[in-house]
Amino acid sequence: MLSDAQDPAANLNADECWELLTGTAEGRLAVSVHNEPDIFLVEFRAQDGKILVRTPQGEMLVELTINPLVAFEVNGRSETSAWIVVVKGTARELQSWSEIDAAQQKAQRPWTATAKGSYVEIAPTRITGRRRPIAPQT
Amino acid sequence: MLSDAQDPAANLNADECWELLTGTAEGRLAVSVHNEPDIFLVEFRAQDGKILVRTPQGEMLVELTINPLVAFEVNGRSETSAWIVVVKGTARELQSWSEIDAAQQKAQRPWTATAKGSYVEIAPTRITGRRRPIAPQT
Repeated sequence: MLSDAQDPAANLNADECWELLTGTAEGRLAVSVHNEPDIFLVEFRAQDGKILVRTPQGEMLVELTINPLVAFEVNGRSETSAWIVVVKGTARELQSWSEIDAAQQKAQRPWTATAKGSYVEIAPTRITGRRRPIAPQT
Repeated sequence: MLSDAQDPAANLNADECWELLTGTAEGRLAVSVHNEPDIFLVEFRAQDGKILVRTPQGEMLVELTINPLVAFEVNGRSETSAWIVVVKGTARELQSWSEIDAAQQKAQRPWTATAKGSYVEIAPTRITGRRRPIAPQT
């Protein structure tokens, strides 16, 4: 749904961004330690205004302990358009079993059976998204 | 090609990583300004030991000027496995027309016609990759 045919890329509002996040299960989490960026592919669920990430990667957890600021990216495409949503926010590892259990129970979609690991919750401070028509394949 | 059935995720060597990078055109670039991570979806070409990124996003170029350290992520999947490659390195914007022209000429695959913008070259300092079998869909 492009709002302006003159501008091929259209900004998405917050509701549109959340709808896309809710329908997606894989994203990339960018972190920074001592101003050195790192990036991880993660499984996630968007629910209740938060992003819940599951990761087996201890390295990511260590880096988030040093600096909890994150940028989280999800993108996808239909036959006619491509979209991207970026969430900036603060991450914290869920520590207590009750929190982890609650997060698992609340997940509207089940996690994949094979993936193991810890849970990290991102509290968003800013969400932006864009959609653009896909260029004809040459 | 999994080397160890006991460990479902197998590390990829540098040649395997470059082969996957060469066969892919879209990746995510993580940057950091004042220890605050940011992330961009970009079109790229891997060639001659470098990653050449094209971006219309002035914000990314500004951030790279402040801090040239980057983490670059590409992932994909076949019917039986999923893979990820992460490149750490230093980025610089190509400034001269001769450099830009040379980069465009060298590209083994054409850039998409619609995408406009500047070119950024990443000189890798570390490349890692992993491949894992895909879990059965439940």
